[in-house]
Amino acid sequence: ASAVGSLSVGLTGNRSISTQSLAPSDTFERRHNSATLQDVNDMVAVCGFKSLDALVEATVPDAIKRTDGMPLDNMHEPLTESQFLSKFKAMASQNTVNRSFIGMGYYDTHVPPVILRNVLENPGWYTQYTPYQAEISQGRLESLLNYQTMITDLTGLPMANASLLDEGTAAAEAMTMCSALARGKKTKFLIDDRCHPQTIGVCVSRADGLGLEAIVAPYSEFSKHYANNDVCGVLVQYPDTDGNVNDYQAMTKEAHDAKVLVVAATDLLALTSLKPPGEWGADIAVGSAQRFGVPMGYGGPHAAFLATSDEYKRLMPGRIIGVSIDSGNKPALRMAMQTREQHIRRDKATSNICTAQALLANMAAMYAVYHGPEGLKTIANRVHGLASIFASGATSMGATVTNKSFFDTVTVNVGAGKAAAVHAAAYAAGMNLRPVDDATVGVAFDETTSVADVDALFAALSKGMGASAASASAIAPSVADENANVPPSLVRTSKYLTHPIFNSYGSEHEMLRYLARLEAKDLSLKHSMIALGSCTMKLNATSEMIPVTWPEWCNLHPFVPQEQAKGYYEMFDELSKALASITGFDSVSLQPNSGASGEYAGLMAIRAFHQANGDHNRDVCIIPVSAHGTNPASAVMAGMKVVSVGVDAAGNVDRADFEKKVAENKDRIAALMVTYPSTFGVYEEGVNELCDIIHEAGGQVYMDGANMNAQVGLTSPGQIGADVCHLNLHKTFCIPHGGGGPGMGPIGVNAHLAPFLPSHPVVTESGAMPVGSDGGRKEPFGTMAAAPYGSALILTISHAYINMMGSKGLTEASKRAILNANYMANRLDGHYKILFTGKNGTCAHEFIMDLRPFKDSHGIEAEDIAKRLIDYGYHAPTMSWPVAGTLMVEPTESESKEELDRFCDAMIAIRKEIAEVESGAVDKENNVLKGAPHPAYQAISGEWDKPYSREKAVFPAPWVRQSKFWPTTGRVDNVFGDRNLNTVRNASGVIEGDELFEASG
Amino acid sequence: ASAVGSLSVGLTGNRSISTQSLAPSDTFERRHNSATLQDVNDMVAVCGFKSLDALVEATVPDAIKRTDGMPLDNMHEPLTESQFLSKFKAMASQNTVNRSFIGMGYYDTHVPPVILRNVLENPGWYTQYTPYQAEISQGRLESLLNYQTMITDLTGLPMANASLLDEGTAAAEAMTMCSALARGKKTKFLIDDRCHPQTIGVCVSRADGLGLEAIVAPYSEFSKHYANNDVCGVLVQYPDTDGNVNDYQAMTKEAHDAKVLVVAATDLLALTSLKPPGEWGADIAVGSAQRFGVPMGYGGPHAAFLATSDEYKRLMPGRIIGVSIDSGNKPALRMAMQTREQHIRRDKATSNICTAQALLANMAAMYAVYHGPEGLKTIANRVHGLASIFASGATSMGATVTNKSFFDTVTVNVGAGKAAAVHAAAYAAGMNLRPVDDATVGVAFDETTSVADVDALFAALSKGMGASAASASAIAPSVADENANVPPSLVRTSKYLTHPIFNSYGSEHEMLRYLARLEAKDLSLKHSMIALGSCTMKLNATSEMIPVTWPEWCNLHPFVPQEQAKGYYEMFDELSKALASITGFDSVSLQPNSGASGEYAGLMAIRAFHQANGDHNRDVCIIPVSAHGTNPASAVMAGMKVVSVGVDAAGNVDRADFEKKVAENKDRIAALMVTYPSTFGVYEEGVNELCDIIHEAGGQVYMDGANMNAQVGLTSPGQIGADVCHLNLHKTFCIPHGGGGPGMGPIGVNAHLAPFLPSHPVVTESGAMPVGSDGGRKEPFGTMAAAPYGSALILTISHAYINMMGSKGLTEASKRAILNANYMANRLDGHYKILFTGKNGTCAHEFIMDLRPFKDSHGIEAEDIAKRLIDYGYHAPTMSWPVAGTLMVEPTESESKEELDRFCDAMIAIRKEIAEVESGAVDKENNVLKGAPHPAYQAISGEWDKPYSREKAVFPAPWVRQSKFWPTTGRVDNVFGDRNLNTVRNASGVIEGDELFEASG
Repeated sequence: ASAVGSLSVGLTGNRSISTQSLAPSDTFERRHNSATLQDVNDMVAVCGFKSLDALVEATVPDAIKRTDGMPLDNMHEPLTESQFLSKFKAMASQNTVNRSFIGMGYYDTHVPPVILRNVLENPGWYTQYTPYQAEISQGRLESLLNYQTMITDLTGLPMANASLLDEGTAAAEAMTMCSALARGKKTKFLIDDRCHPQTIGVCVSRADGLGLEAIVAPYSEFSKHYANNDVCGVLVQYPDTDGNVNDYQAMTKEAHDAKVLVVAATDLLALTSLKPPGEWGADIAVGSAQRFGVPMGYGGPHAAFLATSDEYKRLMPGRIIGVSIDSGNKPALRMAMQTREQHIRRDKATSNICTAQALLANMAAMYAVYHGPEGLKTIANRVHGLASIFASGATSMGATVTNKSFFDTVTVNVGAGKAAAVHAAAYAAGMNLRPVDDATVGVAFDETTSVADVDALFAALSKGMGASAASASAIAPSVADENANVPPSLVRTSKYLTHPIFNSYGSEHEMLRYLARLEAKDLSLKHSMIALGSCTMKLNATSEMIPVTWPEWCNLHPFVPQEQAKGYYEMFDELSKALASITGFDSVSLQPNSGASGEYAGLMAIRAFHQANGDHNRDVCIIPVSAHGTNPASAVMAGMKVVSVGVDAAGNVDRADFEKKVAENKDRIAALMVTYPSTFGVYEEGVNELCDIIHEAGGQVYMDGANMNAQVGLTSPGQIGADVCHLNLHKTFCIPHGGGGPGMGPIGVNAHLAPFLPSHPVVTESGAMPVGSDGGRKEPFGTMAAAPYGSALILTISHAYINMMGSKGLTEASKRAILNANYMANRLDGHYKILFTGKNGTCAHEFIMDLRPFKDSHGIEAEDIAKRLIDYGYHAPTMSWPVAGTLMVEPTESESKEELDRFCDAMIAIRKEIAEVESGAVDKENNVLKGAPHPAYQAISGEWDKPYSREKAVFPAPWVRQSKFWPTTGRVDNVFGDRNLNTVRNASGVIEGDELFEASG
Repeated sequence: ASAVGSLSVGLTGNRSISTQSLAPSDTFERRHNSATLQDVNDMVAVCGFKSLDALVEATVPDAIKRTDGMPLDNMHEPLTESQFLSKFKAMASQNTVNRSFIGMGYYDTHVPPVILRNVLENPGWYTQYTPYQAEISQGRLESLLNYQTMITDLTGLPMANASLLDEGTAAAEAMTMCSALARGKKTKFLIDDRCHPQTIGVCVSRADGLGLEAIVAPYSEFSKHYANNDVCGVLVQYPDTDGNVNDYQAMTKEAHDAKVLVVAATDLLALTSLKPPGEWGADIAVGSAQRFGVPMGYGGPHAAFLATSDEYKRLMPGRIIGVSIDSGNKPALRMAMQTREQHIRRDKATSNICTAQALLANMAAMYAVYHGPEGLKTIANRVHGLASIFASGATSMGATVTNKSFFDTVTVNVGAGKAAAVHAAAYAAGMNLRPVDDATVGVAFDETTSVADVDALFAALSKGMGASAASASAIAPSVADENANVPPSLVRTSKYLTHPIFNSYGSEHEMLRYLARLEAKDLSLKHSMIALGSCTMKLNATSEMIPVTWPEWCNLHPFVPQEQAKGYYEMFDELSKALASITGFDSVSLQPNSGASGEYAGLMAIRAFHQANGDHNRDVCIIPVSAHGTNPASAVMAGMKVVSVGVDAAGNVDRADFEKKVAENKDRIAALMVTYPSTFGVYEEGVNELCDIIHEAGGQVYMDGANMNAQVGLTSPGQIGADVCHLNLHKTFCIPHGGGGPGMGPIGVNAHLAPFLPSHPVVTESGAMPVGSDGGRKEPFGTMAAAPYGSALILTISHAYINMMGSKGLTEASKRAILNANYMANRLDGHYKILFTGKNGTCAHEFIMDLRPFKDSHGIEAEDIAKRLIDYGYHAPTMSWPVAGTLMVEPTESESKEELDRFCDAMIAIRKEIAEVESGAVDKENNVLKGAPHPAYQAISGEWDKPYSREKAVFPAPWVRQSKFWPTTGRVDNVFGDRNLNTVRNASGVIEGDELFEASG
């Protein structure tokens, strides 16, 4: 009988309502895993299996199959999108957003709304890949060229890269450069004790692996160390961490006389007022561009910079953008000097850094474009003016300003024992100052500080000191309008940012359109799949991205008192526990802010473990030749000697060679680095046996987590037998690639390695760092990144993904990733040779197509096919890695069957175009492949002298007719660009008339 | 002496710091008013003046100059962007966001994040203009075609328009259609008393002006009124406002037998389960698409719909999108049947509605595309299931469910006198129910309702009734899984949304890319200036748009208890006061949700004023022939007779004709409608004298506010002598045009008209509605819109603009708008004839270029030039209005000199192309103007048989080479489209194979 008896219709003949149908309907997994269930069935059949489970069963080796259902604690069951956002808002509200006066390299800033919305919140900017395919990346390449120009202008040094991870690691990279420039023959590096403590921490840790001795001393004493000619370089902070604007010119002369290089860690806003390092003799300048419109984000992500002289450019780490020409002799941008990078140089690379911070570098560059030199100077004068008023007022109140000069940071002695009371009064008023000692506080000013803030500071001093408060407006008339507290010898006189690009887009419409024009030049996930093998370009869902710009996450300084970051700690805790379960490990460190940093941190933990065991001789790292180039580069940085092992014809580690190398290095084995599934896209059988052998030899197993997307829920590094792995959260866990960064590379470790995980010199309490049963690090190897939790802000993205997928959804994603790869491999097999499959003929989540036969027989190279794909509207898969002359395809689970089919159709159509060359029907050198890509300016040109039609060139497929993504240049000449290196705006050189100033009309 | 004695550098030789330099630096006005001060000086000189003030002085007539500095109360001084956002967050937090169970046509909904970010928060979707230029509007035209298809599928009626303002006005438009279909001979319209009260209110008010008698009665009694054959139509709600799903089939048969038309106000989500109105015989269906993913926003903006039979299509109001073909015979979309609209038909138009709600219609259509028919049905079943469980549980608790059937709304008698206690318990738990009477509450369910909510409702009932609470999960097994409380005869059996477009984009990547592909087809303010005369396409700044999607503004039902909307009332209050000062009036109503609605409301207030004075014979409205077409259309709707007056050769009102018409209609004059500056872009001298003459004749002066951007701070409607004006907030006050809506049209009135401003049947307290010295309406003419404050959500945008500009900034904007227009007119003068200037040779904020000579001599029409501008990357200015054969250019203050110059360069280059025709150098019929625009598919085509080059066709200017905006079709054939009308997907007719399914590959 119906309980709603008064109603006309009851329960008659129908089933009763199910619990499932009452559950909230805005579920996420079906939005992420794109294929419909019908599609899955169809695709499985194409692969020759009866079900998805059967395919997975046949693909993942039994020995390592996960069977525990991957428990994820309170994230085990998925939340819907709205449930997640609601939960996360509550979590975010646990953070306390105070006004920050802490300084130390992190400053509050106004993100210009037009940049916030149209870059940081725009998938057209955040979902692009690193700009390897220059022809469809001219937008962000131009912006990064602006970034380099901005850095060179402000630092006064002529060469800059397109960003590094953070100021601390940038300083460490500079130290590495100094060592390399001395050819490793000078083993000491001096660090001024008034550098930011986290910078000192990172450099000291890095020195350890490099075999350098990092000596922390006042810069006034540097010259005492020069006698033995074993100092490769020195590092100073300008202005220093206390705020002093020191004149390092004499120190620099002494250093140079002793053939010692000088590195200056510096501040971009200060450099609008201060004589730039390049003008007073520094050889390298590093720093952070954070305060140029990038939120603090509890530590990151931000873009760091490194600039140097022309002389040292080939030892510069990181990405460098340069001008070259295209096939039509028009100027075109591309990444320059890639031969320095790890995928080419491996253990000889200049650095292990692979990920850059393109998105943040673009934001900072656009901030400079929007404000222009005058706007920046206005901000700087204002900041300096407020700092000067504060210093003056504090002095009048009886405090002592301990720094003799300053730009924006004032260190104040408020009286013995009175600092705590001042902090307490400041906290009560919603302000954070820098703790220095029991008598001294630091106060740093920034773009967001107001006169009212200064008065609030006076009030806090008043309470803490028991003096009556000064008044900002009363003091102002006694303060000079410019450079009041900058030493006259260090006042900047040179111009900067004079290029039109920094002087044309100061209104919102102009900026909006500049951003839109650049965006339109770049292919991103907004347009089509980017099937980059090993890069896992999956969906970056909007609901994962929305919290990233919430002020509760954005506006926290990394060094706030920990009780103000409760939301962050709750998020770290949930995320760390989930990652620990996913990896099968006991403990996780969230500090490493890139995959390469994760590798380095993991190896350093292994190193520390061996040393703690007295195994000081364990320094050999065995790495298969198929490994990512970052692996050997990281091993070298961790002080290890790389021993390579070969792979067999099937793409697996050559067991005989492996056993031989293990035997040869028996007592010296520190670690094996292994990628799983292998970089050839195969679940190697017997990988667990390799781990056993290494363990028996006393070594540790490091697993590269790049291919984690094929493991989640199906197996795990811990299950396989590894001791440590890093996770590329920007691959498997949905942090977008940002056009070339940011990423995050946390590491998971077994319990025995947990004590050695990284620590932080400023944020010293355990908090959630790291999680794990043993309660945290006891013997940390050191510090890996400037901020305690790396790029904490974007950890929210991975948290969101895990929380909305739940354990089953994540496992399903891995299965779908495998399915999508196998489906494509099946569709393309016969058209192309598919290299390397597992014992049942399946691939993992990616597969390799062999293109070498076309080159050998008819000169068609992998690059020709990659560039021709652009005409079809697609970004090329990974080219010539890990095998030269191939393409490696990784579709991910987020692509629909329709999209996979379109890509396959493109590849099959290209195969027919290759066949036309093979058959002799078309010319070997002048054909649609060699001519690709075809930008509009070429296709529209009056003189069309190609042997194929314009339509064949640019409209080779029906979907391109419906919606064409136009490359903006013809094929870019890499050799020309490297031979005629030109990495800034207005540089003299190959480009006449600065045609790249795009809006000049 | 420096107060910072301990520092090395003090105040020596410098000026002291100024207060100004300490003010926050993220000021807004310089971002909005784009030209730099240097540019302003240069431009003024080109115009022949010494300063901007001199130009303005010479342009605005002395008699009406504003001299009071336009005081703006607490918005007088501008806030910076960050200050504003901070203030506005605090204001927003005054709103209380409860869970809403109020129903009555407004439901909470999950805006799919991918649609939120990529449509509602994306300037590529919100800054476009109405798609008059079809060739650069195919994206939103396709989406609106999807909308029409969705509406026709769900309502079961074959013709739908592309949205109307809200459900109430849509019902009123349907009533108007019924009257028109009866050729005005049937004077009664019947309205079921169980329609939503606001719908009844709007219809009754509208009937008044139309000379109809609206009779509210139970639908069961409708047939009693048919005897005299004077009923033109009836309106019922389906499901009705109490939730009942009534079977109207018998009623419909009776009506049709009596030749009475049947209008059904209905609900899209319910129609996924219920037999659609078209299937049970309704002639017209109307309703709101709000719950399809559009936030409630305290009342709007939302998209309403109107669907009808093929027979009545030519009387459909609003925009209709249809399929046609382009110059290459490819299918292409455009606005169909525009000859019905006011700019053509004026007082004979089908409606005065001009603004549509394109942005919201697009959101709703995309919601359907994303969910597909199965997803929508899942949502519907869930909503119905929860409602059924609630009904069952409430019954088991001793309450009486008073509606016999329902889809989502349950009306419950909780016991005499107990409703208040139930409401109180619900409020305490953060829930709003619908108040019905002291024994009865209404409870409506929606997509966001959860099982936990149902239990919370039981708890509230329990507290209020003193009964023990039911349990949702315990009741569920007794409830049928589908249509448990829908009459079997009204269960839907027909399919809907079967077209592939509603079944292909269910994953986020697919949706993201579909949105991106459509966006890429549309030119918006992201690309270039849109210099549409009379439309004021100024900057829609990001900081103005950011609060629009804050949940505190988004998630409020318009009928929440007013104490929950404190933030809104504060905002209304500040905004109304500012608008009152800006217009020079005493009182403002924020209810009208479009410019045309504002006109109508203003005229109705005048009508009510005359009637209150006993002047029942005052029904003549004098309107210059140069007026916007909405003016006469609105006057007719307000029951007035239109008397036209001519204009003289200078574009001014013909004084003699005016005086003659006034004399002829002396005692019957109700109003003069006048636009200022005139629609010819001139500050007419003597406009104040016209006002005096009307006043002397006993009439009132209505000023059309379309050209307000030339008045702000310089003069005002009140100063000129008007009694009432409307404001197009989507023109002067920065609400974006949304690709064809939404807009807002508040009205300002003098004190004597304030008592007659509109009221609302549900939200009856005065609050801030309207503001003014006399404290509110005493004799309201009626109700204008479904929600008390119209599209309240977007009022935040105008508030933001005013708050960040301040009084001086707003005045400067008007000056700059005048400057920009005069600068362009000067640059173009000589190349083109500039029509109509003021006595000192200047124009106002816009100017008209005469193109008629080219047509007369060589057949080059305004349209040819408009379409050729597309090849240059520009949207055409207003074409052939107010003078046929002209272009009217309004640059606004937000365009930089560079952008103005580029546009002028394009026009001058086109003039040279015209000269080639004039000289006979090129063919009259086959030339680059007649061939324009040139889409890529034509320019790339193998057979290029044009007498000009491909490059001349598509790359006519350097900036286009640097960043080309491609039109996606050739010139669209309007005549073909109207002759072969096809307004939905998959319609049989002109398009074979449904080529418009864009992703079919």
